Amino acid sequence: MTSCCIQLINPNTSLSMTERILTAARDVAAPGTDIFAVCPEEGAPSIEGHFDEAIAAIGVLQRIKEGREQGVDGHVIACFGDPGLLAARELASAPVIGIAEAAMHMATLVATRFTVVTTLPRTLIIARHLLQQYGFERHCARLRAIDLPVLSLEDGSGLARRKVREQCLNAKREDGVGAIVLGCAGMADLALELSAELEMPVIDGVSAAVKLIESLHGMKLSTSKQGDLDFPVQKELSGYFKGLN
Amino acid sequence: MTSCCIQLINPNTSLSMTERILTAARDVAAPGTDIFAVCPEEGAPSIEGHFDEAIAAIGVLQRIKEGREQGVDGHVIACFGDPGLLAARELASAPVIGIAEAAMHMATLVATRFTVVTTLPRTLIIARHLLQQYGFERHCARLRAIDLPVLSLEDGSGLARRKVREQCLNAKREDGVGAIVLGCAGMADLALELSAELEMPVIDGVSAAVKLIESLHGMKLSTSKQGDLDFPVQKELSGYFKGLN
Amino acid sequence: MTSCCIQLINPNTSLSMTERILTAARDVAAPGTDIFAVCPEEGAPSIEGHFDEAIAAIGVLQRIKEGREQGVDGHVIACFGDPGLLAARELASAPVIGIAEAAMHMATLVATRFTVVTTLPRTLIIARHLLQQYGFERHCARLRAIDLPVLSLEDGSGLARRKVREQCLNAKREDGVGAIVLGCAGMADLALELSAELEMPVIDGVSAAVKLIESLHGMKLSTSKQGDLDFPVQKELSGYFKGLN
Amino acid sequence: MTSCCIQLINPNTSLSMTERILTAARDVAAPGTDIFAVCPEEGAPSIEGHFDEAIAAIGVLQRIKEGREQGVDGHVIACFGDPGLLAARELASAPVIGIAEAAMHMATLVATRFTVVTTLPRTLIIARHLLQQYGFERHCARLRAIDLPVLSLEDGSGLARRKVREQCLNAKREDGVGAIVLGCAGMADLALELSAELEMPVIDGVSAAVKLIESLHGMKLSTSKQGDLDFPVQKELSGYFKGLN
Amino acid sequence: MTSCCIQLINPNTSLSMTERILTAARDVAAPGTDIFAVCPEEGAPSIEGHFDEAIAAIGVLQRIKEGREQGVDGHVIACFGDPGLLAARELASAPVIGIAEAAMHMATLVATRFTVVTTLPRTLIIARHLLQQYGFERHCARLRAIDLPVLSLEDGSGLARRKVREQCLNAKREDGVGAIVLGCAGMADLALELSAELEMPVIDGVSAAVKLIESLHGMKLSTSKQGDLDFPVQKELSGYFKGLN
Amino acid sequence: MTSCCIQLINPNTSLSMTERILTAARDVAAPGTDIFAVCPEEGAPSIEGHFDEAIAAIGVLQRIKEGREQGVDGHVIACFGDPGLLAARELASAPVIGIAEAAMHMATLVATRFTVVTTLPRTLIIARHLLQQYGFERHCARLRAIDLPVLSLEDGSGLARRKVREQCLNAKREDGVGAIVLGCAGMADLALELSAELEMPVIDGVSAAVKLIESLHGMKLSTSKQGDLDFPVQKELSGYFKGLN
Repeated sequence: MTSCCIQLINPNTSLSMTERILTAARDVAAPGTDIFAVCPEEGAPSIEGHFDEAIAAIGVLQRIKEGREQGVDGHVIACFGDPGLLAARELASAPVIGIAEAAMHMATLVATRFTVVTTLPRTLIIARHLLQQYGFERHCARLRAIDLPVLSLEDGSGLARRKVREQCLNAKREDGVGAIVLGCAGMADLALELSAELEMPVIDGVSAAVKLIESLHGMKLSTSKQGDLDFPVQKELSGYFKGLN
Repeated sequence: MTSCCIQLINPNTSLSMTERILTAARDVAAPGTDIFAVCPEEGAPSIEGHFDEAIAAIGVLQRIKEGREQGVDGHVIACFGDPGLLAARELASAPVIGIAEAAMHMATLVATRFTVVTTLPRTLIIARHLLQQYGFERHCARLRAIDLPVLSLEDGSGLARRKVREQCLNAKREDGVGAIVLGCAGMADLALELSAELEMPVIDGVSAAVKLIESLHGMKLSTSKQGDLDFPVQKELSGYFKGLN
Repeated sequence: MTSCCIQLINPNTSLSMTERILTAARDVAAPGTDIFAVCPEEGAPSIEGHFDEAIAAIGVLQRIKEGREQGVDGHVIACFGDPGLLAARELASAPVIGIAEAAMHMATLVATRFTVVTTLPRTLIIARHLLQQYGFERHCARLRAIDLPVLSLEDGSGLARRKVREQCLNAKREDGVGAIVLGCAGMADLALELSAELEMPVIDGVSAAVKLIESLHGMKLSTSKQGDLDFPVQKELSGYFKGLN
Repeated sequence: MTSCCIQLINPNTSLSMTERILTAARDVAAPGTDIFAVCPEEGAPSIEGHFDEAIAAIGVLQRIKEGREQGVDGHVIACFGDPGLLAARELASAPVIGIAEAAMHMATLVATRFTVVTTLPRTLIIARHLLQQYGFERHCARLRAIDLPVLSLEDGSGLARRKVREQCLNAKREDGVGAIVLGCAGMADLALELSAELEMPVIDGVSAAVKLIESLHGMKLSTSKQGDLDFPVQKELSGYFKGLN
Repeated sequence: MTSCCIQLINPNTSLSMTERILTAARDVAAPGTDIFAVCPEEGAPSIEGHFDEAIAAIGVLQRIKEGREQGVDGHVIACFGDPGLLAARELASAPVIGIAEAAMHMATLVATRFTVVTTLPRTLIIARHLLQQYGFERHCARLRAIDLPVLSLEDGSGLARRKVREQCLNAKREDGVGAIVLGCAGMADLALELSAELEMPVIDGVSAAVKLIESLHGMKLSTSKQGDLDFPVQKELSGYFKGLN
Repeated sequence: MTSCCIQLINPNTSLSMTERILTAARDVAAPGTDIFAVCPEEGAPSIEGHFDEAIAAIGVLQRIKEGREQGVDGHVIACFGDPGLLAARELASAPVIGIAEAAMHMATLVATRFTVVTTLPRTLIIARHLLQQYGFERHCARLRAIDLPVLSLEDGSGLARRKVREQCLNAKREDGVGAIVLGCAGMADLALELSAELEMPVIDGVSAAVKLIESLHGMKLSTSKQGDLDFPVQKELSGYFKGLN
């Protein structure tokens, strides 16, 4: 097998989160997989709603284009709303995986139903729409929010992490599920210890996405350029977006 | 009833299309409704895929913010993919309506099932996802594409318009539907004449969206700021996006 | 724009409720819109189940026929079960809107999910079936009943109205929704004050239906006579139903 | 087992069709089952759309009430749209079965997917809505119409019957189904011979409904009076409907 | 009507449960219906998960083959997971009915929504999948488990039976349903007394399946041999399975 | 990363197909992945319906148990119906992946919609049910069958392989899809060359399943033993099944 180079895109502008995500990604990488992490230069420091996602999508596309020019073997969009996923698939020639889809797919392979634990309640609707689009509505028993912002996972206080653990325990006790999906890239480093403590799969999308890219790469599969994910129709983009396609 | 000021946003950068859409919108405006049209300064000249939509969403949000500051009573997003719709609803205080949703809603009020006629086949997936998100999968019997780009509707040749008519006739004959939804803002001016010729509702989303804004305005209803469509979480946006929230 | 004449049909025989509904309807009518209200001469004083609905449907059809002969521009069926809606669309040449569909459609335009608050628990199944038929199952987070009959809204005691308010407050607190749909024509006059108190859209179907009729009229759209909503097949009706088609 | 008395209600006013349906019903009746047939005195001679159904529902309810007073053990609504079914269940104390639901249920017990063959294309939407309400959308591969009115099945020319046979043959050849549901009470007498000729189940709802009533009767099950199918809320009905509840 | 001979298959190896199920079945049999009960010689003493079901399916198929050779008129699979149902339909020439499907179908004929009460929580996923496959997801309001193994229903202590009653009472009070489906063949003898006490239909699948076999037999309908339920493709089976087809 | 040992289970008894599948699996295995292939000693030489699947499930479980005792890191069920999948997950401690689910999951990651190409038409219903259970109904545009038995892929004539290619070309031309899923383990070796010829992803489930096992292994995720996939309830199995749990 040839080596596999993965571009890990953190769609927000937080460098510390980018670093932490990279660590989580590298922890699961196969030998021969090379991962580097990027984030937008301009955009939002955290992504907590449709508005933030729309902004983040541009940064994602800019990085996708760079990655494509560098010839990477796959791209990961490391934000649980999978911002810009289908647009990125149009732009990319390599596979593109979002961490929400990655975690959800993996969850359905190890359990019949799962619970999602995410950050702010207002982001639940994004997860709901993704479940619907990916086909996993029936597989998701419940959506839970810790009611703290994304960056609270980074504040060193440990509060957010305690709340994630608490919601996971609640899910195990009340939801009748076999797995838990962590609904934020910033929770990536919690998956292993929570899996061990709860004795059930607690799934992080960052590592899941890395493995799916490796899988597609190993199968010599890439984003289909037949049909609606073909490269964007060539046209003159203007202003800030000039040359993005 | 107080007067109603509507900001009509063409998400692509084509000024001529912006003008034509404005005309269609004004044709159905109630007395007391004031409509002005804007488009992004920077972006894509036409929107034909997820990538184009991601770019267009930024232009939409910039215009939404301006419109909000101007105190408009409603915003219309005049592209059939409804790009940036939920993000725009977060940013706006007034109602925001996309033309795809508007046309689809209206179609279900006058017929049990409808056909969508749009431009490029690659955009069909966008309409499919919208039908799913809006709840109208069962109401849509078929999706048809004329297989010509959006701007061919503007090229003066009449070819695209003949193809739209042809697909509408096919839909009437073959699809068992009671209405047709025109799947592009650039087809707005065809609705009335096709309705007359086919003797069935052929629905343009631009006029539908204008009427829905007038309706919400008349009911004193606006985008809910309770829950997941509340204004974006305040945070420091950087670079090109600075100050957009 | 030409003026618009709307026939507002209260499907039950309560004259006082007919009056109150008319007031609510006129409150949102555009200049140039003329609304008059009718109710069946024979039938049920309130509609609280499938049986009542079946009876009400006949009164609705009788009034629809009259309205059609009078050349009205649209008909509203002002009972939350939308009794006889598709039959009425066959019989009418103008648009026909039910208040349940109207309120539900409007709710999806201002919020991602809504709660319905209605009267007797036994009517919840009717709302469930409508959500399914209209495509809004995923948009409705919960159905709530105040467990009081329809006419308790008219009894002057204020009890029913307090219970509606209470359920709306519960919905805001517990259901994670952005809007509330009032599930009875008799609650029409509560919408504005509850919207103001709860600071979120509380939607009345009577006014929503009026605006949708105005919208369709303004777009020169009417019920499709192509296909399954065409005028009833001509046949000899007998007895009480003679001449109804 | 006690004997079982079934009231067979033809919702249209055609006496000859009532007779023919009765014959089909008696052909499958168990020993100890007694069937008599009734039809409305006033109403529509055939039922071919929502409007006809709304009228027919009243006649059905009148007969249901009579049947209840006579102490029948079950009621069959012998029109493929199942007009007034849920209203009838409220009014009845014995079980009520519609022939569309009966045929569809039986079809799912002998085949994984089925085709419906009915009369006029405009009635297809009624079958579609029933499939959705009963839960059988995925089990129905296709809906076919012979494009002739209901009463053509009675005209002695044999044309309609030949067209039914033709559509059944087409269904066998093209639809990949294991069973066919006949979509009109007037086709009841065709089921056996078509089953024999096609060597696959061709299912008539009249006989299916009779057997389901016998089944429920044998299990001592009746329409639930707990919850939303309880007897109609007692209220003063007026005019033509006086005393119907 | 010709007499009807039904083979009742208990998929587990418990002879006492086989006897009890037979009694329940005979209690509802029509005159002229002859029922005999069999169970696998080898397999699992109770069925409480997918693994147990896979094993049970073989015993079911062995008995189906015997029954077919004996010329029975129908087969009942008397375990609530309907193990091996579609395989059995391929193998059989007579109709085959599972008790889960039978109970669920009957429930939808007497109520708009129902609750399932079953044994171990781990079997709920099987019921969920069946609801999905049969089309009754929307008709089932809730799934409840008594959290005791299947054979506790046979242990003479009465504990399991008290817990079933308790869950039925909870369902009546909390679930807003009109009927209850008993989710285990071992609960068959509870249906009548619980129906009487709760004054609502409490439905046992064993008797429901017997009546559905009688119904199909009376209609001269059998499992379709057209298409995907045709007899298994002839091939050489080896070892333990030799000659099973 | 630790090495990963995968047990590849061909559920039919064909040794030559087992060999071919093993080759396909090894072609995509990562360095450090060790794959060995087994098949049942007793059972069916090919799997072409529900009956064959029920038999195959036992052989799968026997091999799963052996694999568990050998301490393998994952099991692949290499038949497109995923026979015994959930039962196998109960029995196993390592992850278990079916090739149908594997191929379908992968397809949704590289295309918005896909077509399945399988062998006999009677197996289409199995694929339909899997799409429904896995959540991919909307992602599958069409199911195609070459109308030849499974073992024709092994007969050396090349006919079946030509027919697969033909259906793939038809899918590309007619179905509007971005990917094709090969619906039989016996087609595994066709995926790469068809992908190259058609210039779109043609996906084999054997290799997909291998990569998913590697992925789960790399993430230290295994089948959840919390809830409904826990090890089978311990009980005395008898006869042929003795000691299988």
